[in-house]
Amino acid sequence: MTDKEIDLLLSWAVAEIIDKDKLIFELKTGKILRIKHGIDPTTPDLHLGHSVVYHKLRSFQELGHKIIILMGDFTARFGDPTGKLTARTFRTKTEVRKQSSRYKKQLGKILELKKIEFRYNSEWYDKMALDEFLRIIGNFTIHQMLERNMFQERIKNKKPILIPELIYPILQGYDSVMLKADIAVVGQDQLFNEIQARTLQPLYGQKPQAILATPLLIGLDGKQKMSQSLKNYIGITENADEMYGKTMSIPDALISHYFRLATKLPDEKIAKIENGVETKTLNPMEAKKLLAYEIVKTLHGENRARKAEKFFRETFQKKQLPSELKPLKIKKFSSLFEIIAEQKIFSRTELRRLFKQRAVEFNESVVSDINFAVNVSGVAKIGKKRFFRLEIF
Amino acid sequence: MTDKEIDLLLSWAVAEIIDKDKLIFELKTGKILRIKHGIDPTTPDLHLGHSVVYHKLRSFQELGHKIIILMGDFTARFGDPTGKLTARTFRTKTEVRKQSSRYKKQLGKILELKKIEFRYNSEWYDKMALDEFLRIIGNFTIHQMLERNMFQERIKNKKPILIPELIYPILQGYDSVMLKADIAVVGQDQLFNEIQARTLQPLYGQKPQAILATPLLIGLDGKQKMSQSLKNYIGITENADEMYGKTMSIPDALISHYFRLATKLPDEKIAKIENGVETKTLNPMEAKKLLAYEIVKTLHGENRARKAEKFFRETFQKKQLPSELKPLKIKKFSSLFEIIAEQKIFSRTELRRLFKQRAVEFNESVVSDINFAVNVSGVAKIGKKRFFRLEIF
Repeated sequence: MTDKEIDLLLSWAVAEIIDKDKLIFELKTGKILRIKHGIDPTTPDLHLGHSVVYHKLRSFQELGHKIIILMGDFTARFGDPTGKLTARTFRTKTEVRKQSSRYKKQLGKILELKKIEFRYNSEWYDKMALDEFLRIIGNFTIHQMLERNMFQERIKNKKPILIPELIYPILQGYDSVMLKADIAVVGQDQLFNEIQARTLQPLYGQKPQAILATPLLIGLDGKQKMSQSLKNYIGITENADEMYGKTMSIPDALISHYFRLATKLPDEKIAKIENGVETKTLNPMEAKKLLAYEIVKTLHGENRARKAEKFFRETFQKKQLPSELKPLKIKKFSSLFEIIAEQKIFSRTELRRLFKQRAVEFNESVVSDINFAVNVSGVAKIGKKRFFRLEIF
Repeated sequence: MTDKEIDLLLSWAVAEIIDKDKLIFELKTGKILRIKHGIDPTTPDLHLGHSVVYHKLRSFQELGHKIIILMGDFTARFGDPTGKLTARTFRTKTEVRKQSSRYKKQLGKILELKKIEFRYNSEWYDKMALDEFLRIIGNFTIHQMLERNMFQERIKNKKPILIPELIYPILQGYDSVMLKADIAVVGQDQLFNEIQARTLQPLYGQKPQAILATPLLIGLDGKQKMSQSLKNYIGITENADEMYGKTMSIPDALISHYFRLATKLPDEKIAKIENGVETKTLNPMEAKKLLAYEIVKTLHGENRARKAEKFFRETFQKKQLPSELKPLKIKKFSSLFEIIAEQKIFSRTELRRLFKQRAVEFNESVVSDINFAVNVSGVAKIGKKRFFRLEIF
């Protein structure tokens, strides 16, 4: 690898690197590096926030390095501590395994599945003696673990921390020992956990892993990090039109943030777009269309991206007021009829007639049943001109 | 059991009782209760401080209840957290097992060994899956564990707490689940740990155990609790003369404390002695002789107690100044000749002659070898009148 290539690899979508010198040195040796990324298979879908890491992994994969996806199928049963949840419900092995296969399929959108080494931490934790486990955690003090910001906040807010939560980072660290990881590539929120590996690896005769942490992508709300539980996300497997439309809904202030983290556009091109918006020679709406196009292209291919752009132009942009693009938040299994009726644009009689006349569509399929219940997010089309974006909350 | 018997059982040498009403109720039902006492087999010898608990267990045993001695052969490998030590060295299984058999033998001094159910917590912890373990500790928060005074002090003094130390009380608690304990009888310093059992037992369909905690015996120094590491103890298996002599060396202020915790003398008799000392009708030295007699009697029988009293009277009391009773602190394998020579009571020539004439004794055996090295604590007698108490430190 040339210095310039290394520089790009270690600067594009990077928040922090631990042991950067070692990492550069090893990249230069030409050795095939073992690159670990752990997934806690607990939530149903991967989203654009996760994809930042996967794009980075893809780059390493293209350079010929070995990507190891570690499914935390043992640890996920207890749950990574988060700031949000205080008490975690334990999961069954079956639940977690099922979720792992869902993830695998989704990863194929970005990574070359065949070249990945898929591992499960139940491989070692299911058969580990308690004795060995206590020796492992005996290398850490409570104080060291409580340094994690999230724990400090919990303490400040007098929220409980369960003991398995305290141990979780150590288990994640020990995974690196078992995988003989040279580098861990993770989102920035996992940095603390991965650092624990660096204490353990030398005790097992390994060099401590380098860590490359990617920044956290801000969600569609423009406030909090993209997350499933906050419903401010674009799923990796969402259909192209949804993906395009959701991207169009981000606040203008995030355009640059999304270009830099969610697309693989070269720096020069992004800089040009940013400059256009800044000097007002490029309308933010147009910049977002470029962004939405790029995002859809990455995950669905160029063809689908073009179609999504066309769909957006023909439907939302031409025929509707921008205010109507705002999503309606609905509960799962809400009646489509009732949702539309509540908008007071059509009378109930009129609406009933439109259903009968097959003039109502949901996600491009005709809906004639007046009792139709919506159970996924999507776009409803009523007659020829009215569109509603429905979002399950 | 009569109310009076119960009252005596629950008041003699008792510091605290958890769930006293349940305990009284169950004692009255006549049911054979399962009484747990856990031992962490880490230090070589049992001492008078431990015996307070064993006398209490003996009382329960005499009432027909089942005493279960739980050897913490699994947990001892990691060590109960103490205020003294900050980093614990892990022990091997063999070391701990060896120590367990030593203890068993010593327990026979106080308890009827044949009627005891001896258990080892390696029975369950050696084969416990990590999965199950995490579920068990998932019933506790860090905050709950850190409430333990000892941890609070460590935090205050900025001393580290290893994570296995935090978990230790939970493991001790889970032992009660496995033993189906009705009561735990322990020294007061184990109260916190035993209380954890009360959280776990109901989760396994058991009633929470009652806990009877005995007070901690103050050591010979009159300051800190009796402990092996502080060398302020009387060992359960020490010879009668040593035991008698050491008891005579306690500060007068502790006479009552020792009578109440280390002898089984009825309350009325103790009260009478206390009253005698207070009104100065009984010399404290005489009170201590009664005390020493009682302690030796409990552990060596009446005959040996009488002999020890005689030995003390004939040697120390008649012939020596009280100041000479103060022990000389010596290193293991010190030369007896050098120790005595350093006292400057005999010239080196004179002392050499006494050795030759077989006028030197150590622990009642003649020592004629001038190179004799002392490797146990004991009494040296030089000529007919001089005695020195030697204590290995």
